[in-house]
Amino acid sequence: MTKKIVLAYSGGLDTSVAIPWLKDKGYDEIIAVCLNVGQPGTDMDFIQKKALEVGASESYAIDAQDEFADKYVAPVIKSNALYEGDYPLVSALSRPLIIDHLVKIAHDHGATAIAHGSTGKGNDQVRFEAAIHALDPDLEIEAPIRDFHWSREEEIDYAKEHNVPVPIGKKSPYSIDCNLWGRANEAGILENPWNQAPDDAWGMSVSPEEAPDEPVFLDLTFEKGLPVAIDGTPMPLATLIKNLNKVAGDNGIGRIDKIENRMVGIKSREVYEAPGAAVIMTAHHELENLTLERDIAHYKPLIEQQITSMIYEAKWITPLFDALMAFVDETQKNVNGVVKMKLYKGNVTAVARKSPNSLYDENLATYTSADSFDQEAAAGFIKLWTLPATVYEQVNHVHSQAKDKVNND
Amino acid sequence: MTKKIVLAYSGGLDTSVAIPWLKDKGYDEIIAVCLNVGQPGTDMDFIQKKALEVGASESYAIDAQDEFADKYVAPVIKSNALYEGDYPLVSALSRPLIIDHLVKIAHDHGATAIAHGSTGKGNDQVRFEAAIHALDPDLEIEAPIRDFHWSREEEIDYAKEHNVPVPIGKKSPYSIDCNLWGRANEAGILENPWNQAPDDAWGMSVSPEEAPDEPVFLDLTFEKGLPVAIDGTPMPLATLIKNLNKVAGDNGIGRIDKIENRMVGIKSREVYEAPGAAVIMTAHHELENLTLERDIAHYKPLIEQQITSMIYEAKWITPLFDALMAFVDETQKNVNGVVKMKLYKGNVTAVARKSPNSLYDENLATYTSADSFDQEAAAGFIKLWTLPATVYEQVNHVHSQAKDKVNND
Amino acid sequence: MTKKIVLAYSGGLDTSVAIPWLKDKGYDEIIAVCLNVGQPGTDMDFIQKKALEVGASESYAIDAQDEFADKYVAPVIKSNALYEGDYPLVSALSRPLIIDHLVKIAHDHGATAIAHGSTGKGNDQVRFEAAIHALDPDLEIEAPIRDFHWSREEEIDYAKEHNVPVPIGKKSPYSIDCNLWGRANEAGILENPWNQAPDDAWGMSVSPEEAPDEPVFLDLTFEKGLPVAIDGTPMPLATLIKNLNKVAGDNGIGRIDKIENRMVGIKSREVYEAPGAAVIMTAHHELENLTLERDIAHYKPLIEQQITSMIYEAKWITPLFDALMAFVDETQKNVNGVVKMKLYKGNVTAVARKSPNSLYDENLATYTSADSFDQEAAAGFIKLWTLPATVYEQVNHVHSQAKDKVNND
Amino acid sequence: MTKKIVLAYSGGLDTSVAIPWLKDKGYDEIIAVCLNVGQPGTDMDFIQKKALEVGASESYAIDAQDEFADKYVAPVIKSNALYEGDYPLVSALSRPLIIDHLVKIAHDHGATAIAHGSTGKGNDQVRFEAAIHALDPDLEIEAPIRDFHWSREEEIDYAKEHNVPVPIGKKSPYSIDCNLWGRANEAGILENPWNQAPDDAWGMSVSPEEAPDEPVFLDLTFEKGLPVAIDGTPMPLATLIKNLNKVAGDNGIGRIDKIENRMVGIKSREVYEAPGAAVIMTAHHELENLTLERDIAHYKPLIEQQITSMIYEAKWITPLFDALMAFVDETQKNVNGVVKMKLYKGNVTAVARKSPNSLYDENLATYTSADSFDQEAAAGFIKLWTLPATVYEQVNHVHSQAKDKVNND
Repeated sequence: MTKKIVLAYSGGLDTSVAIPWLKDKGYDEIIAVCLNVGQPGTDMDFIQKKALEVGASESYAIDAQDEFADKYVAPVIKSNALYEGDYPLVSALSRPLIIDHLVKIAHDHGATAIAHGSTGKGNDQVRFEAAIHALDPDLEIEAPIRDFHWSREEEIDYAKEHNVPVPIGKKSPYSIDCNLWGRANEAGILENPWNQAPDDAWGMSVSPEEAPDEPVFLDLTFEKGLPVAIDGTPMPLATLIKNLNKVAGDNGIGRIDKIENRMVGIKSREVYEAPGAAVIMTAHHELENLTLERDIAHYKPLIEQQITSMIYEAKWITPLFDALMAFVDETQKNVNGVVKMKLYKGNVTAVARKSPNSLYDENLATYTSADSFDQEAAAGFIKLWTLPATVYEQVNHVHSQAKDKVNND
Repeated sequence: MTKKIVLAYSGGLDTSVAIPWLKDKGYDEIIAVCLNVGQPGTDMDFIQKKALEVGASESYAIDAQDEFADKYVAPVIKSNALYEGDYPLVSALSRPLIIDHLVKIAHDHGATAIAHGSTGKGNDQVRFEAAIHALDPDLEIEAPIRDFHWSREEEIDYAKEHNVPVPIGKKSPYSIDCNLWGRANEAGILENPWNQAPDDAWGMSVSPEEAPDEPVFLDLTFEKGLPVAIDGTPMPLATLIKNLNKVAGDNGIGRIDKIENRMVGIKSREVYEAPGAAVIMTAHHELENLTLERDIAHYKPLIEQQITSMIYEAKWITPLFDALMAFVDETQKNVNGVVKMKLYKGNVTAVARKSPNSLYDENLATYTSADSFDQEAAAGFIKLWTLPATVYEQVNHVHSQAKDKVNND
Repeated sequence: MTKKIVLAYSGGLDTSVAIPWLKDKGYDEIIAVCLNVGQPGTDMDFIQKKALEVGASESYAIDAQDEFADKYVAPVIKSNALYEGDYPLVSALSRPLIIDHLVKIAHDHGATAIAHGSTGKGNDQVRFEAAIHALDPDLEIEAPIRDFHWSREEEIDYAKEHNVPVPIGKKSPYSIDCNLWGRANEAGILENPWNQAPDDAWGMSVSPEEAPDEPVFLDLTFEKGLPVAIDGTPMPLATLIKNLNKVAGDNGIGRIDKIENRMVGIKSREVYEAPGAAVIMTAHHELENLTLERDIAHYKPLIEQQITSMIYEAKWITPLFDALMAFVDETQKNVNGVVKMKLYKGNVTAVARKSPNSLYDENLATYTSADSFDQEAAAGFIKLWTLPATVYEQVNHVHSQAKDKVNND
Repeated sequence: MTKKIVLAYSGGLDTSVAIPWLKDKGYDEIIAVCLNVGQPGTDMDFIQKKALEVGASESYAIDAQDEFADKYVAPVIKSNALYEGDYPLVSALSRPLIIDHLVKIAHDHGATAIAHGSTGKGNDQVRFEAAIHALDPDLEIEAPIRDFHWSREEEIDYAKEHNVPVPIGKKSPYSIDCNLWGRANEAGILENPWNQAPDDAWGMSVSPEEAPDEPVFLDLTFEKGLPVAIDGTPMPLATLIKNLNKVAGDNGIGRIDKIENRMVGIKSREVYEAPGAAVIMTAHHELENLTLERDIAHYKPLIEQQITSMIYEAKWITPLFDALMAFVDETQKNVNGVVKMKLYKGNVTAVARKSPNSLYDENLATYTSADSFDQEAAAGFIKLWTLPATVYEQVNHVHSQAKDKVNND
């Protein structure tokens, strides 16, 4: 029986070398699959052909940009998902999408295994394999890069022996992953957290210093928690994000430089860029400030933190993630409106906002005579609001001892 | 028996008018108390004298800046307390401090009541009265502004009749509160959330556009979670905050413009400035990224959100707040180190960080050959990490139906 | 214009006296509405007529038992909602249902107000009024009992003057509320928490001592988280609960005696009975143990606690409650199966359980040779699971100082 | 150099066979250590000698009962720690204590490794190894049982070859772990969750049917959240628990039969007994109902759930656990008082409670004329409490559509 495997193929050296390596390991047919999730500068035709040239039996190049935006980025926006408060989850989003396609292709071709190109100390191996287990636990998994145990030189030698083209010039000191939602960069000089990130660490944005001296204003329209138009022009989410990446990146927006906890238990130093995400998520948060009822506004962050952790920690395809998203979707029904954003030299700010579902009521909030708020109600409210702690103090005198002392004098 | 009341006195029209008003209401002696919590441009001598001039029997002016920073701001820093993710809790912090002094003075003088100058639709009335209830529930409370039911004209007439000086010129359209930790501004044109905040709404900072064209770098040193030195120069917390307010305000940093949920149940539009807070809290968060163990890093935000809500919602003097701070203090023991901050035209960024308690281990994180991480362990980890969701899919086929369909073909 | 009001009518003295009292207050027509939510021994015809006799212009008696069970009790079951870990929320459930009917009747009749019979220190006033505000904030609210300020004697005198029948004999020392989900009792001798609840405090159950000497076994079948059959016999939820109330009450099951935090800020001592609830909720929890994936099993209790608080605290008709229930409903899709319950002298125990969606896998769990679990994976798992805390100890030596001391000797 | 290892020794076949096996693996000296943590029927002298007889170079028998109760059980009581709501964490507690002793002994003897007797599919391997990593990550770990890959017959043959005494008669079908806090039992017939637990599965309690026909009452006194006396007689915690195990076990109390989520990712069926724990934890919860301020009472369960998970999941020696316990300890300062417990045929009930720190205030709670609660305050409270959801409905009409429809008719 022909032994077939589906390989998540990027076109780079590692996954190219994996093709002969998997053949050596006994696979008869390697089906290479490359997905376009908006990584810039990717020539999908070239990648598709290269896979065949280095030995793949079949090669797929799939444009999954809209699917990526609508199914994988959208939950992040609705959930204000920022890992450890900072990072809008770039790489973690594409992994379950890639596996979804690979498993379908494996089933179509009767392949019994899937191969991915992750190392053994990062998060992505977990995300790839978690998705495979969830979608078909009978599929075997190959992780050639994790198993190579090769030095760079050995890998190049092996590539040359197997007619795999070797890139000319010095290898980039960085390890980069990119999609339309952002760009992640680590390794090299960044590994010392006291080193400032050098200019060549960035790829989607100029520095605030290099940005124009005049601010850009734009109106972002949301429907049910998702951005649907820029300055009134409707467009698909993927297009909208790419447009914002351009204008926000040009204005020095979206750079993140942080120490982060990986799910495999170590800390790493990461340099991210997500210009469009910075604009969208700032606007979404402020529109929620206007449209979410208070109890939801105060409870949703707990749910958001769980969602964020689960996305980061490879738990996208789980029943808990589904249930959490059912919560979030319910909260977004009335998150409609327009937020005016100002972009200026690294700053992204919501400067005005309006909504047909606005819960801001000028008549309740105002200090003018148009006031409809019942100020008398406040006194009663305060009495009951503070009653439990008041009784506690009366009984236990934790903070009110000073008085007793004075009284005893 | 002489009926005495202690009044939280600001020197402004409202609390000045309150003095004759309280006399009218039957109080024999009004003891005015004004605290300096770092509000800029405050002439404490003038305020102390003015209280006596408009009828107070005694008048205190107390410099509480260090106490404010050390006891009230410090927990905010250690807790990364940002209300609704945005606002570092300016006014909420000074209320319990003010009441703490007022209650002590009431006890010293045998006063039976305390008066504050809050309106009936804001948060501060709750914070004042919650603190009074907690520290001495037997004290009566007067809230003259809440009870006035006067128009501006009626208040001015009453002031004139009672020899209370009336400020010349148009009243500010804004309602402002300020202390060394920041400045809060609301009302006026800000009440329409689609209006952009005009230049005159701001008081502690220049706009990013007006800031210098060259960045400022500074090293902030922390011990046990609190900043103790700038560029190696140690200083008390109050001084450090005021120094940072100056340099960060001059660089356009710390402006916040948001719709917020008040505790009395309405939304309001607020414009805050907290330049020093922006620098300190950004640095503190990044130092925690470097020094907090992962489980703490991921759990502490839940505690922080509760602390933040409780500070905002007038629950400073409660046993739950004490217990939550016991948690936080325990986490800060090893939050020591230096964070290099870049200040540039509204941007405040941590660009480098180091710590004797750093948990970032270059040998574990590196991709070079110095690697001490056991990559083999990952495969076992992934298997057990994903087992529950894998079994769930095997039994319930929520996400893996596609395969079955294909197989059935 | 005729001024009409809809009154939540129970047939008792308080709400009967309310009818003439509301007339005195200027209402032309009082529309009395009594709902049957399963309170035992209620003669709905008698109540309906009595309202007319004491002056109501119209009187409705509505059997709402199925609606109560299906819409208000079902969420409690699916959420394992036990207030403060103990109490399955009896009275809190009927209030929003009652108001839902009253508001509809008010709209049908053009009434402008609703009256309820709660006192000013309990929870129910909040639940009634919260529901009114949510469903129609324009409706005015009358709370005659809260406003009476009458002694018992004055109330009786007023009743006699207005031809309201006065119950013969001594008033019950207790304050009781009852529906098909349970019975709440407070006041009287129970107000001293050191007093044991006397026999006459109970009304739906025998004591464990009085229960039969032989256990009863029954199989409870669940579909999507709700019980649908007893011993294989399908029945509507309301009927199922009432059947279980009988058999479990006869076996001494479902008594709760506790100190509880009321939402108005005081503690009270409550004595509850909920025999059927005890059986259903014990069985549901154990069925979830069998069918919920681990992450859901460990996260859902946080959601449940929030739901429970919100039901207790009058937040049934809120967007957060809807979003939380969207989460819960999503989790219940596969909570199907049968739990064998043993009822014996106060004990209710799940003794066996089975499910088509069982995630218990004998091949994974077994210690026999049929074992399919990969024991090798455990070592890798443990390494990564413990890595963050291990590094923390290596750097900070919080718990591992002993070794260093020994080594230094 | 002599290669030494410290072995966690129980006296049973598995850890006895481990001694020659470790010698075969190259260890020169095996230091056996057995701790008495209250497991009943343990002859510590016999065990100590047996280790030497089967080849250990040294053998320690340590009575750690008080240490176990005071340092490991006490946090469980203060935290109301019940895993998945049911199980008071028996085995999870003794593992870090055992390792603490083993690591000290390893350091004293210059041993470089520690061996434990856990299998590869249970929780205890993780708990043992997590504690070793935390206390000294340089120590190597041996897990002979996990590595044996032997059938029962092969193990017996190996034992006979190496002069390890083989128990006569059939092996127990169960896998049992026991200490003074309770008893855990799994495997055998219990592995089918539809099988009822047979009589021989239990070891610390009679069935409710076999228990006496008369109830037992006892007063349990607490100080700072821990039980210190029974019926007024003070005693150390370990003694108190053992006394309660006897009386509660004799009354059929403390049996738990449940499906549980193991941390290695599988579900298992467990049968526990914890008679003393059932009495103490029921009493502690009710005393907290009386003495905890409401906000603490409602927040602490979230902390408790995290503590419980961390104990179960091998995270005892972590900075997060320390911080969570700092929270809990702060809450227990005023948890003082007496709870009267009734024990009867499997039921354990708090029937009365009193405390010098009681927050139950009869004057606030009463319905009699002694009432000091301000009923007027309620109306104001309700208005502000419900305002956010009311405005939400006014804007979005999620639940109030019925009215509009009616009005449109």
